[in-house]
Amino acid sequence: MAISQKEKAVCILSGGMDSTLVSYLAKNDGYEIVAVHFNYGQRTQQKELKSFRDICKALKVKEKYEIDIPFFKDIGASALTDETLDIPITGIEKGVPITYVPFRNGIFLSIATAIAEKEGAKVLFIGVVEEDSSGYPDCSDTFINMIQKAMNQGTKKETKLEIITPLVHLTKKDIVKKSIKLKVPLKLTWSCYANEKKACGVCDSCRLRLKGFKLAKAKDPIKYKIKKKKK
Amino acid sequence: MAISQKEKAVCILSGGMDSTLVSYLAKNDGYEIVAVHFNYGQRTQQKELKSFRDICKALKVKEKYEIDIPFFKDIGASALTDETLDIPITGIEKGVPITYVPFRNGIFLSIATAIAEKEGAKVLFIGVVEEDSSGYPDCSDTFINMIQKAMNQGTKKETKLEIITPLVHLTKKDIVKKSIKLKVPLKLTWSCYANEKKACGVCDSCRLRLKGFKLAKAKDPIKYKIKKKKK
Repeated sequence: MAISQKEKAVCILSGGMDSTLVSYLAKNDGYEIVAVHFNYGQRTQQKELKSFRDICKALKVKEKYEIDIPFFKDIGASALTDETLDIPITGIEKGVPITYVPFRNGIFLSIATAIAEKEGAKVLFIGVVEEDSSGYPDCSDTFINMIQKAMNQGTKKETKLEIITPLVHLTKKDIVKKSIKLKVPLKLTWSCYANEKKACGVCDSCRLRLKGFKLAKAKDPIKYKIKKKKK
Repeated sequence: MAISQKEKAVCILSGGMDSTLVSYLAKNDGYEIVAVHFNYGQRTQQKELKSFRDICKALKVKEKYEIDIPFFKDIGASALTDETLDIPITGIEKGVPITYVPFRNGIFLSIATAIAEKEGAKVLFIGVVEEDSSGYPDCSDTFINMIQKAMNQGTKKETKLEIITPLVHLTKKDIVKKSIKLKVPLKLTWSCYANEKKACGVCDSCRLRLKGFKLAKAKDPIKYKIKKKKK
């Protein structure tokens, strides 16, 4: 019997809860994961990189790319990469927040496209969440469809890439529930925007995460600096 | 009288003949140029960077970004970034050549989008050439239109970017003629794929350039290693 070669899937894996679940979904679909992580000068670069590596180990990923793109720090314009700007901690507001990094997913997807083309992968997983999200314009279904068209037009004829976004229409509650059901090691993930030993519990990312756990009636296994409010 | 502020144009400027002409066209259109250059581990990185800086000086550019994206060297798969692959010197063949760098313009344009959004620029110039080119899939008009749509969808609502490609339907002959007419300092430009003191004269890029000068009945001001054939 011939050994069947698994199809490759490029998974953009930040080390957060969403991209970790997405990588587990890709693995469950039978793909061989090519994990791609970006060090973009974000405050929590070291924390996220550690989460990425721990999750790759847990997933038994054979091939991983750790891509350095230090230029976001030069471009600035986001509280995630510019430490002179404060991370908002007073609650999620309407509109595009100051933590928005200009066209981050556009850049991540373009680089992942080059990797997919080189690796001969036909699918590319990304954990964007449109509903119940931080209001970033590069997380919508419409954007993903448009960039997928551009990617296929701008690469070799034989490169036919599909972007798979299993979470795009899920709420954080759904994401927590699904992660628990699939035994995703949520304790290895890092979501907080602040670079502290424990998660701050009050930035937009912590708030969304904690809200998800609360609504899913589950306990977040990571440690928080600020005591969680009683349910 | 109030001092009128010039509108900004982000210009992707490699230091080759095409992007240099494009930057001069942007300048002639009255834009204040924000020049963007990429060091992507290409063989001729130092040569191109020198050309970029010299041209910025000639153009009196006030704002420039030199963006390091070393990951293309890790991805490999192109003779421009992988020195174990030979640069073809036997003439231009049909199809996508081995010098194709996976989705290079997609990545360049995505990063330039982030810069344009930060700088508040409304236009983005790139010197892609569709006809009379090396056969790269990310140089076509169709691709540019598709990625422009994705860029505007994936950025803030107030960010409305137009990609301007003044050369896309020109031949190399036209490009040489136009450059001479506009007194573009072609002697500062570098096109060759090989990393030698003088241009090789036989790689695809040199061939296209020399063909352009020949058809334009003009003399290329840069030095070549191989004696140019008689017309």
